[in-house]
Amino acid sequence: MLFGAIEAGGTKFVCGIGNENGEILERVSFPTTTPEETMGQVINFFKDKQMDAMGVGTFGPVDPNESSPTYGYITSTPKIKWRNFDIIGELKKHFNIPFGFDTDVNAAALGETEWGAAKGLDSCVYMTVGTGIGGGAVIRGEMVHGMLHPEMGHILVKRHPEDDFAGNCPYHQDCLEGMAAGPAIEKRWGKKGIELQEVDKVWEIEAYYLAQAAVNLIYTLSPKKIVLGGGVMHQKQLFPIIRENVKELLNGYVQTNEILSDIDQYIVPPGLGDNAGLCGAVALAKKACGI
Amino acid sequence: MLFGAIEAGGTKFVCGIGNENGEILERVSFPTTTPEETMGQVINFFKDKQMDAMGVGTFGPVDPNESSPTYGYITSTPKIKWRNFDIIGELKKHFNIPFGFDTDVNAAALGETEWGAAKGLDSCVYMTVGTGIGGGAVIRGEMVHGMLHPEMGHILVKRHPEDDFAGNCPYHQDCLEGMAAGPAIEKRWGKKGIELQEVDKVWEIEAYYLAQAAVNLIYTLSPKKIVLGGGVMHQKQLFPIIRENVKELLNGYVQTNEILSDIDQYIVPPGLGDNAGLCGAVALAKKACGI
Ligand SMILES: Nc1ncnc2c1ncn2[C@@H]1O[C@H](COP(=O)(O)OP(=O)(O)O)[C@@H](O)[C@H]1O
Ligand SMILES: Nc1ncnc2c1ncn2[C@@H]1O[C@H](COP(=O)(O)OP(=O)(O)O)[C@@H](O)[C@H]1O
Ligand SMILES: [Zn+2]
Ligand SMILES: [Zn+2]
Repeated sequence: MLFGAIEAGGTKFVCGIGNENGEILERVSFPTTTPEETMGQVINFFKDKQMDAMGVGTFGPVDPNESSPTYGYITSTPKIKWRNFDIIGELKKHFNIPFGFDTDVNAAALGETEWGAAKGLDSCVYMTVGTGIGGGAVIRGEMVHGMLHPEMGHILVKRHPEDDFAGNCPYHQDCLEGMAAGPAIEKRWGKKGIELQEVDKVWEIEAYYLAQAAVNLIYTLSPKKIVLGGGVMHQKQLFPIIRENVKELLNGYVQTNEILSDIDQYIVPPGLGDNAGLCGAVALAKKACGI
Repeated sequence: MLFGAIEAGGTKFVCGIGNENGEILERVSFPTTTPEETMGQVINFFKDKQMDAMGVGTFGPVDPNESSPTYGYITSTPKIKWRNFDIIGELKKHFNIPFGFDTDVNAAALGETEWGAAKGLDSCVYMTVGTGIGGGAVIRGEMVHGMLHPEMGHILVKRHPEDDFAGNCPYHQDCLEGMAAGPAIEKRWGKKGIELQEVDKVWEIEAYYLAQAAVNLIYTLSPKKIVLGGGVMHQKQLFPIIRENVKELLNGYVQTNEILSDIDQYIVPPGLGDNAGLCGAVALAKKACGI
């Protein structure tokens, strides 16, 4: 089977064709400008493709509730032109096939359980640490929805004792995203993360915040795997420090093998690498076909 | 139909018979001593009852994973005598009927979606603030499990600027439970919560911590309802302060009607009152019958 996949991001839309094994056969990207222009390019790319279904994982917030009148919309995004944009409705005008739809990070979590680091498991959290911090989750095989969907980037964190950076989340100042996304690193240290590779203190502080996020996720969602992706996580030295901090913070309270003996296999990079988002969209399409 | 229900707590076991409408027809309780003694009384109570199924909601941690060899066990509890106790195995020796099994708080969350404050919804979080703090969750109609089950009492919280109480969680010192459970209130102020009813500062600080918990739950699980029960929540003046703090902390980031206009109906006391736990066990039994 062949699936159309769209990973709709704030700076670019990645579009591709994948198969039921999560293999990406074709891949292009278009800058995110206006819905008219960007969607025009997207529709043009897909119009002659053979596809059994399409999957759309997008920046949010979105309405993922199938029984809602605004299902398939990007809703209250700060990107004014995309606010209340009916992305699935627009695509359905052109493609008469089943659609899967969710946040980019819920989709990535699904993709990781299908073909990636959480393959064979029925639960995982996927968190991306990049320009922002976002997270999605699969629990008992289903992406988490309720009132809305997870928005893990904005959880509260305790300040590192040596960190006096004010934080730069426009809503909350020193929430997780405000303290630990790529732009926070850049603002705190006056240089991009990639230029700070050798400065241990940068990653000690970064890991301190990301470990708090992991701990709170363990206490609330109790995922079987925590996958950390996004540009900042290319700094692979973060992983052992995060794992160490998680163990210290839990302090023996959660007595599972995952934590006590296999934490190196519990908090991990995406199995699908930088394809996690696009493969996630393929997984959404596959799920929309009921397979 | 008639269901046997057990709410297994650290100080007492509440046993009862309920029907498919969540009505409790009979109710007794026994002190939690040793498994031999307490379970003897429990089995004796139920032995001549007519029951279609039984439900057990218990203190944890537990193994709720039906495919695991230790399914139905209370696992690594600090209560030594109950550690690795096969509670469902013991009951099955005496009652040859279907069993439902989960944590007391996951059961309570299920009960609240069946007959309580979250009736008609497919998701809710139930958090109890008593001798300890525990929380359970239903998402898409199912209790949340993954690596383990939720352990919401131990999430990290930021210290209130005027609060210098060290915290009394034996594992984490100043986690949510260490700062906000009943014993923390008593130790901080030198008096029991019930005697502090008139002291506004007590409830301002208490609400500060509980609101952080609610916010992190909104960001991770995004429940359709947050139900707060347990002894401390008998202080009803907490509810408006918690709601106010939640709105302030979210600061407009989550644009849902539940938060923006209906928060009085979003963060609420248990619809089942002090029967939330026992009704939860009835709901587990009902679910075990596939209805
Ligand atoms: N190798 C790296 N090391 C540290 N930081 C990085 C690295 N690559 C990207 N970043 C940071 O991650 C952010 C971009 O995140 P990325 O996940 O690539 O894109 P986006 O989140 O916009 O989709 C930027 O703040 C950038 O500085
Ligand atoms: N009306 C009340 N006001 C304030 N605190 C209370 C009240 N009732 C009980 N508590 C506190 O709640 C704790 C007991 O919690 P409870 O939910 O009744 O039992 P448990 O958690 O042991 O099942 C004690 O610390 C007690 O001081
Ligand atoms: Zn924020
Ligand atoms: Zn604790």
